Amino acid sequence: MADRQREINELRIEKMTAEIICVGTELLLGEITNSNARYIADQLAKLGIPHYHQSVVGDNIERIGHVIDIAIDRRAEILIFTGGLGPTPDDLTTVAIANYFATPLEENEQILSDINKKFAERSLVMTDNNRKQALLPKGAQVLPNSIGTAPGMIWHPRSDLLLLTFPGVPSEMMAMWTQTAILYLQSLGWGKEIIYSRVMRFLGIGESNLASKITPLFELTEPTVAPYVSKGEVRLRISTKATSRIAANELIEPISEQIKTITGLDYYGCDEDTISSVVGELLIESKQTLSIAESCTGGGLGKIITDTPGSSFYFIGGVIAYANECKTSLLGVSRNTIEQFGAVSQQVAMEMAKGLVKKTNSDWGISITGIAGPSGESFHKPIGLVYVGIVGPGEIFEGFEFKFGTNKDRETIRYLSANNALDKLRRLLVKQKIKKENTYIMG
Amino acid sequence: MADRQREINELRIEKMTAEIICVGTELLLGEITNSNARYIADQLAKLGIPHYHQSVVGDNIERIGHVIDIAIDRRAEILIFTGGLGPTPDDLTTVAIANYFATPLEENEQILSDINKKFAERSLVMTDNNRKQALLPKGAQVLPNSIGTAPGMIWHPRSDLLLLTFPGVPSEMMAMWTQTAILYLQSLGWGKEIIYSRVMRFLGIGESNLASKITPLFELTEPTVAPYVSKGEVRLRISTKATSRIAANELIEPISEQIKTITGLDYYGCDEDTISSVVGELLIESKQTLSIAESCTGGGLGKIITDTPGSSFYFIGGVIAYANECKTSLLGVSRNTIEQFGAVSQQVAMEMAKGLVKKTNSDWGISITGIAGPSGESFHKPIGLVYVGIVGPGEIFEGFEFKFGTNKDRETIRYLSANNALDKLRRLLVKQKIKKENTYIMG
Repeated sequence: MADRQREINELRIEKMTAEIICVGTELLLGEITNSNARYIADQLAKLGIPHYHQSVVGDNIERIGHVIDIAIDRRAEILIFTGGLGPTPDDLTTVAIANYFATPLEENEQILSDINKKFAERSLVMTDNNRKQALLPKGAQVLPNSIGTAPGMIWHPRSDLLLLTFPGVPSEMMAMWTQTAILYLQSLGWGKEIIYSRVMRFLGIGESNLASKITPLFELTEPTVAPYVSKGEVRLRISTKATSRIAANELIEPISEQIKTITGLDYYGCDEDTISSVVGELLIESKQTLSIAESCTGGGLGKIITDTPGSSFYFIGGVIAYANECKTSLLGVSRNTIEQFGAVSQQVAMEMAKGLVKKTNSDWGISITGIAGPSGESFHKPIGLVYVGIVGPGEIFEGFEFKFGTNKDRETIRYLSANNALDKLRRLLVKQKIKKENTYIMG
Repeated sequence: MADRQREINELRIEKMTAEIICVGTELLLGEITNSNARYIADQLAKLGIPHYHQSVVGDNIERIGHVIDIAIDRRAEILIFTGGLGPTPDDLTTVAIANYFATPLEENEQILSDINKKFAERSLVMTDNNRKQALLPKGAQVLPNSIGTAPGMIWHPRSDLLLLTFPGVPSEMMAMWTQTAILYLQSLGWGKEIIYSRVMRFLGIGESNLASKITPLFELTEPTVAPYVSKGEVRLRISTKATSRIAANELIEPISEQIKTITGLDYYGCDEDTISSVVGELLIESKQTLSIAESCTGGGLGKIITDTPGSSFYFIGGVIAYANECKTSLLGVSRNTIEQFGAVSQQVAMEMAKGLVKKTNSDWGISITGIAGPSGESFHKPIGLVYVGIVGPGEIFEGFEFKFGTNKDRETIRYLSANNALDKLRRLLVKQKIKKENTYIMG
């Protein structure tokens, strides 16, 4: 144990750090996931505040005190608490903190009038247990909560120690973090440089293929470029430390442009863009309309398209042709084609798209037919086999075959089908746009 | 500090507990959410193993050792680790544990041959860094990993201490937990009684309304009944400690039946049931078919219906009538009706449902038209106003108005619209079933 003690003492001389302490018996019972810890950890990383430990502890004064003791022992200089600030008897974070530092609690007038006001707005009478939320250790400042009744505190019980407390409700914690805490930490000198990033999104290309095209960029240090896969698409995160978003963009932009040039049509958007929003913008720009005919996705393609607000500007609607009768009665697919090639075939996909555009008079039509599983496959038509047909202006009439893999589940295959069908349309829309621009320049 | 030391010493005499220690710099950077901690916490609660502390620490031998020290200091007798078992240099959990207990690492033949086999199956050659995963502290047993290459350990470094290690990949950790760890803990005498629960699901009734109908049941202690709201529906969790699922069901079943009697048609299913799967079962039973005509949900209703595998037995398909032209051209809604009452009206919903069933020849037809936002509202037609029409056998022709609230977002309104439309169909299907059963009995 003498050795252990020496090691622990050595830890003490490391540079000072922040620790996250999440309070709540519901976390110990596994009733909720600790999403607050992730959010704060991400924010600390962005502010450049070192952070080596997180703790979860129940609503218990002694145990909370013990956890504070351990964190201080590890030379933490910023302790960030979530949870245990509410009005009920098991909300004990503030009391535990005051106890630990042997500091009396005082009723804060600002909080009290604020809670009173919030209750009045909802035509409710404030009960006595809500008064509890107005108590802060003597000397602590209010960390305002604009959307709930329980505020937090900003407190320096000692010159080398900062305590921040937040409620456990993620939306309140996040609002308090962005509205006040982040500015306070910056005022202390943290986060002069913040990590900014841009996420570039790709469809129709695998991770290793994309990575091999831009290998030298992974050696960069300012900004850094890192690939990852999420929800069936490859993404590249370009990150850099900078004093502002504008300064960051000056570093990120040239790399982003370089990647766009190398990857061409495989790149579809960045950050908040979705394949649905990108297709939407292209359709708005070209003043064209879209309709769809979907079988295996059963409405999923339409849902993704209409997830984008304003999709009514270009999306007409279409047909969910789940049963073969629907393919025939609503889209005019010939019974012969279905019998000869099967409902999941390129031929049926093309007839679906053709029939659709005839019915809806839209500029573009997409059809999907495939085998999403868990059953319905045959030797020649495995689970994950999906056909897409696209009909468009200027006699565009294109078919696509996808094999998403027999090991994928129904939900994934349906998701990939809808997204990749939209990606095929995006590529055609971009080509059309380039052609038009060239014609304009030539003319 | 003397006072603090006394308090800490007092903590030592509390009864022994488990602690969860999650290792991974990605957790400290906020790159991933700690879902493993929640899973294990829930499992510990079910086994009745007390658990008062969780720690997160980076991939660092000294700091992992320090966290072990703290846990043992707190009298933990079971330490459960996740993360840091892989082949890369930053996977340090096993080394840190061996170091802390000053125990040499040994190459485990069983693990080595298992890893070799897994690589061979994938036609890959095992690299040297994968050998690292075969190292365990002398005396530790293998905790097998059936789906990945990194196994964990089961180790009693002292008679009063058990260590379990798991990889950070949730699917591997969970498989190892259910396949081995839970049985091992039970063999030690834990979890003779486990907490079993049943979740009852309700639609079309609010939480306080439901709660007021069954108030006395909340006083029960064996089993307990607790309400909560999730994804737009009210749920009741009935939980009890028992030695087996069968024994638990004997306690849960009578309460569940009592609640069903009180709540009638508001109850729709339990546990893994969804409104889509329940409607599907009813349609299979009645040998009837369903088609849909959706406007504001844009495919979302079809997606929910076809999320259920086997939905092709009863779901024909339908029309996404997003634009008014589609309502007219594909469903035969009269232009006059749209002009006179607006596209979002009970009249249009009814014409949509009627036209739909005519086109598809299905037994049942559901239509949805509404305002999902974020724009498109008017003074008389606020965001969240949704009309549903249902046409069914025996001249069923019913309309429903929903006001989901102007403060809800687009995604929520669309989700609620689809689910509540299906719930209205479910109620009609249940009534039809009861009527048939009565006719049969009467006959």
